[in-house]
Amino acid sequence: MDPSQVDIAPHKDLTIENITENVHMINSRCPDPRQKYLMERLVTHVHDFARETRLSTGEWMAAIQFLTSVGKICSDVRQEFILLSDVIGLSLLVDSIDHPKPPASTEGTVLGPFHTHDAAHEPNGSTISHDPDGEPCLVLCTVKDMAGAPVAHVKIDIWETDSKGFYDVQYADRERPDGRTVMESDAHGVFWFKAIVPVPYPIPHDGPVGQLLKMLRRHPYRPSHMHFMFAKEGYDHLITALYLRDDPYETSDAVFGVKESLIVDLGAVNAEQAQKYGVKEGGKLMTYDFVLVSDEETRRLREKEAIVAMKKLGRKMKLYHGLPVPDVD
Amino acid sequence: MDPSQVDIAPHKDLTIENITENVHMINSRCPDPRQKYLMERLVTHVHDFARETRLSTGEWMAAIQFLTSVGKICSDVRQEFILLSDVIGLSLLVDSIDHPKPPASTEGTVLGPFHTHDAAHEPNGSTISHDPDGEPCLVLCTVKDMAGAPVAHVKIDIWETDSKGFYDVQYADRERPDGRTVMESDAHGVFWFKAIVPVPYPIPHDGPVGQLLKMLRRHPYRPSHMHFMFAKEGYDHLITALYLRDDPYETSDAVFGVKESLIVDLGAVNAEQAQKYGVKEGGKLMTYDFVLVSDEETRRLREKEAIVAMKKLGRKMKLYHGLPVPDVD
Repeated sequence: MDPSQVDIAPHKDLTIENITENVHMINSRCPDPRQKYLMERLVTHVHDFARETRLSTGEWMAAIQFLTSVGKICSDVRQEFILLSDVIGLSLLVDSIDHPKPPASTEGTVLGPFHTHDAAHEPNGSTISHDPDGEPCLVLCTVKDMAGAPVAHVKIDIWETDSKGFYDVQYADRERPDGRTVMESDAHGVFWFKAIVPVPYPIPHDGPVGQLLKMLRRHPYRPSHMHFMFAKEGYDHLITALYLRDDPYETSDAVFGVKESLIVDLGAVNAEQAQKYGVKEGGKLMTYDFVLVSDEETRRLREKEAIVAMKKLGRKMKLYHGLPVPDVD
Repeated sequence: MDPSQVDIAPHKDLTIENITENVHMINSRCPDPRQKYLMERLVTHVHDFARETRLSTGEWMAAIQFLTSVGKICSDVRQEFILLSDVIGLSLLVDSIDHPKPPASTEGTVLGPFHTHDAAHEPNGSTISHDPDGEPCLVLCTVKDMAGAPVAHVKIDIWETDSKGFYDVQYADRERPDGRTVMESDAHGVFWFKAIVPVPYPIPHDGPVGQLLKMLRRHPYRPSHMHFMFAKEGYDHLITALYLRDDPYETSDAVFGVKESLIVDLGAVNAEQAQKYGVKEGGKLMTYDFVLVSDEETRRLREKEAIVAMKKLGRKMKLYHGLPVPDVD
């Protein structure tokens, strides 16, 4: 660039006390008010963290190396930064903020790092897991709106591990998706499929996040669960999961995802169901009635909660595309 | 692990309001009090950031992807996370906290991402840059202690760019180190070498950090400077640099490194110097007297500043290996 074009406010001789305001000043020319606010809060928190802890150069370098190794291990089928976000509770927190749920709707939970975009679209009744060692489980669900009316044509992503606790993408020799599918609810809001009973499993702990858990004396296990993701225009995107009751890790999930309203008791397939759905009588049965919230209702709730939170902060704020920014007018 | 061994405090149904204390609880079994404190402050700041900004899922995912791309571009000769730390002022802040300087000692500044460990050890008088387009510059320096006594046998790393503003490691076809050396001060605390006049240059801005600067409408330039790093047992490690006065980027350094006490005026080599040092009369001359601080004095100053900062925080703290941790006794 042409040095004569340097028109930012001059800064020099920055100290522990004045560097934060100077970085804010230099970043303040960002034209997008939301990005500017995010950077301002980010820089403030990062600097406050260093000041409060008196972060040493050695600790700073260890953090640089940790983050580098987290990035290095990421691949098309492994997202270690999401895993890091999960184990510090950030993922659940962001989902709770962005997808507030009114009472009686289905709660959301962590996406996790194993959702993919290559699952086959399959009709109701499909078999989504082909693991011969898995215990068969018939899954019968409905999708309704807040008024109790069935919602048809909802796109539903479903994914679970095999009987050994591994997702398909964790196998180096994976040839095609397994243990995952994309379905659609029918005219009655129903979707159903044949899966296997979920099992508890450790999140990948052979990388830097595993090292972090070890340092913190935490186990890497998640309780048995099956992931669901719901999408339909006009409805708030719902990322959730169903958990099995009395799993040994029910109250110590490594990624903080378990909610009481998402815990299910497995039942047994009765004779009528066995005939209707083409499965064995007495086999495992999972049922759940999901309740979606409209985009509009979610937006109203999200904005209401944001305004309350901003008031608590004591800063003069306004909403910009539904998200808080400083009100400088 | 054996699920019967799960002995951490149970948690479930975590919300925007209670997740932070629950993550702290789960992390509280970390046996190292310093690591535990760092994690507690880190989780608090990350969660507060998300709550204060009402971070959206889309913004969270953009951050995940940004951090992943920062990690991906790191290599043996490129450290994008250090660059990121530099452009948000964190690097300078950490150096200021960890290496406090009493008045009259030489101030520190950012290490930057281009120091390497493969520079040749060379004697006084060596030529450290072989760029034929660089303007020759004789550099005459001394190293003294706080009492003004010369310090001999100090290991000094020196590195600078070539005349085009690139470090040797930025060339894909680099065969050997250039523009960098490791020297030692002699019995009089003197070290001297033949270099080239530093030029301003942009930090690497073809990666994610460059994208961030672009979003913030910031230029990527650093003012002309030469890096120095001093190491000798008993003395605080000094990472610093000398800057040329009146550089167009003197007050807008992309990484916030310039300090008035580190700005030098280039002189001209006189006849006597030309003969003594074997360079052309009238050529450029850079001189500086560096002042090192003892380990002990630095430690005292660092701990004193830490205690003052902890008092401001209003938490009951103590020092553990010289760094703050909560005082829970």
